[in-house]
Amino acid sequence: MRNTVGWQVEGPSPALRRTPLERRDLRPDDLAVRVDYCGVCHTDLHAVSSWDGAGGRRLVPGHEFTGVVTETGPAVTRFTVGDPVAVGNIVDSCGECAMCRAGQENFCHAFPTLTYDGTDRHDGSTTLGGYSREYVVRDRFAHALPAGLDPAAAAPLLCAGITVWEPLHTLGVGPGTRVAVAGLGGLGHLAVKIAVALGAPTSVVSRSPDKAADARRLGAHGLIVSTDPEQLADARDRFDVVIDTVSAPHDLGPYLRLVAMDGTLSHVGHLGPVTVETTDLLVGRKKLSSAGSGGTPATAAMLDFCAEHGITADIELLPSARVNEALDRLRRNDVRYRFVLDMSDLD
Amino acid sequence: MRNTVGWQVEGPSPALRRTPLERRDLRPDDLAVRVDYCGVCHTDLHAVSSWDGAGGRRLVPGHEFTGVVTETGPAVTRFTVGDPVAVGNIVDSCGECAMCRAGQENFCHAFPTLTYDGTDRHDGSTTLGGYSREYVVRDRFAHALPAGLDPAAAAPLLCAGITVWEPLHTLGVGPGTRVAVAGLGGLGHLAVKIAVALGAPTSVVSRSPDKAADARRLGAHGLIVSTDPEQLADARDRFDVVIDTVSAPHDLGPYLRLVAMDGTLSHVGHLGPVTVETTDLLVGRKKLSSAGSGGTPATAAMLDFCAEHGITADIELLPSARVNEALDRLRRNDVRYRFVLDMSDLD
Repeated sequence: MRNTVGWQVEGPSPALRRTPLERRDLRPDDLAVRVDYCGVCHTDLHAVSSWDGAGGRRLVPGHEFTGVVTETGPAVTRFTVGDPVAVGNIVDSCGECAMCRAGQENFCHAFPTLTYDGTDRHDGSTTLGGYSREYVVRDRFAHALPAGLDPAAAAPLLCAGITVWEPLHTLGVGPGTRVAVAGLGGLGHLAVKIAVALGAPTSVVSRSPDKAADARRLGAHGLIVSTDPEQLADARDRFDVVIDTVSAPHDLGPYLRLVAMDGTLSHVGHLGPVTVETTDLLVGRKKLSSAGSGGTPATAAMLDFCAEHGITADIELLPSARVNEALDRLRRNDVRYRFVLDMSDLD
Repeated sequence: MRNTVGWQVEGPSPALRRTPLERRDLRPDDLAVRVDYCGVCHTDLHAVSSWDGAGGRRLVPGHEFTGVVTETGPAVTRFTVGDPVAVGNIVDSCGECAMCRAGQENFCHAFPTLTYDGTDRHDGSTTLGGYSREYVVRDRFAHALPAGLDPAAAAPLLCAGITVWEPLHTLGVGPGTRVAVAGLGGLGHLAVKIAVALGAPTSVVSRSPDKAADARRLGAHGLIVSTDPEQLADARDRFDVVIDTVSAPHDLGPYLRLVAMDGTLSHVGHLGPVTVETTDLLVGRKKLSSAGSGGTPATAAMLDFCAEHGITADIELLPSARVNEALDRLRRNDVRYRFVLDMSDLD
């Protein structure tokens, strides 16, 4: 086994503590990655907040990170030592089902192996995430980090970025597509940047009028204040695609009513059960979809697109020792727009 | 006013009684139609069952009927006396909003005038439906009944037919599209006929294994018994389009899981609020939509398509005096597949 160190929840405590960790010895198709930067995702907050430590399980969060290859297994051909790489929220899948064969490992019929709190397909161990100084990953699930992307600001692309890329890309967003992005947070601000780079006239929907300046800076045409019924009414039926990035449970009706004839409301992230009035779908032949992460080909395409258009996340970079502060501030939505942990303080 | 007779609920009684009715004198763009055949829709049953007679309102159901023009207003150019016509569930709309201008009067922003229990846009009266011997309708909302379509069996096309045509047509169903139709009733059996005529390999999903012979007779490839978990599991991710015609409140999850990658579950009819697990949408990038009725151009296109392919409903034709029996049997799903009332007994 390989020794490293990371930030772990033990037992029922919600606080992360610096803890020695072991990583597996490299399998033939494994890479060892020195983790340099790891984004702090809402999923991490959710996992930490709901952690009960049952069965003595350990939680090391973190599923959007960048770093450098430090060692390769003998069957690895795509990477060599020193290569900058990026890893997202999936680190393995069955490779044989229709979804895996289609490059949609995120929909693997046998369920993909998650980057943390997943179960390794070979040794049955619980995966420990990217809030650590080293990660060992199967080469197929590591991505070359394109030159020109700042590795700290690029880390959130691996979860937040691909999650919003998927619906924007598969819904064919491009010049002329009227896009609204609801919620200007970690996911939302990347959705705006990517939609704008795709050429789509893009608006932001937010409870906070004070996001107007940021919305414009990100390239959006304007801000619709969702607490203002008049602004919502004016925006009715106006958007071909509405990307709803609001993570708390909420009524989808007001966002569905913004969707134009034959358009789509895509909720991103795992919202759990949602209730919609069929009338809100029926009137205007609207569609509801949901997105979260993506497969390896889409992730590679997203990274190339972001490199071409100079897109990374707007981040607050903190030493990893301040991880508990980052989670606490994320809980209060006090971040513009993504915390990234600098793992070099773990050396 | 014009005098006719129809089947009406009065006061809180759920039984329909033969009652003299008045129709408005023709406006310049009105037709008088002798109603020959009127289909019995689930909406009628729902309206009758939930009727409380509040405010002295009267209910004459019926919104899918065929008949013959008996008189025309001076501004009518599309029809002359003697023309066979068909009327659906909408008889007027604002004509000015974006939806009306797009030919989607069913989504009129000012709400379309329903064929019964609607409010006339000119005189404020409550509209009385097609369970009667005469109806007066604005010419724009009457459709020429194509030659070759049996007027009794064609009546259900005007509500059940257009309701399933809309999603099949707008989702681009054609040769190669794998279609499943859930529920083999009034809507479902027409969905199967239309999907098959569009060239789509079509399956039926039903609780009743005894529908297998009918499914094949209608042109379907096979029947998936929805109470058999093994059959449902075998059919997972197999259909590009699933048309869900089940009218009772139900879990959409099992039907969403039949939808293939990037496919759509379209529920037809007004189901009210529905709850879906976003995971059931997310895994496979599936979409949920809902459909009910259609605009005048789509209705005309549907009628032409049905005439070309010889599609009408499978009906049980009853004298209109047996309307209460028809509603009672419809309540017990004891009809294959649509009751149509013959109005000639009202003379």
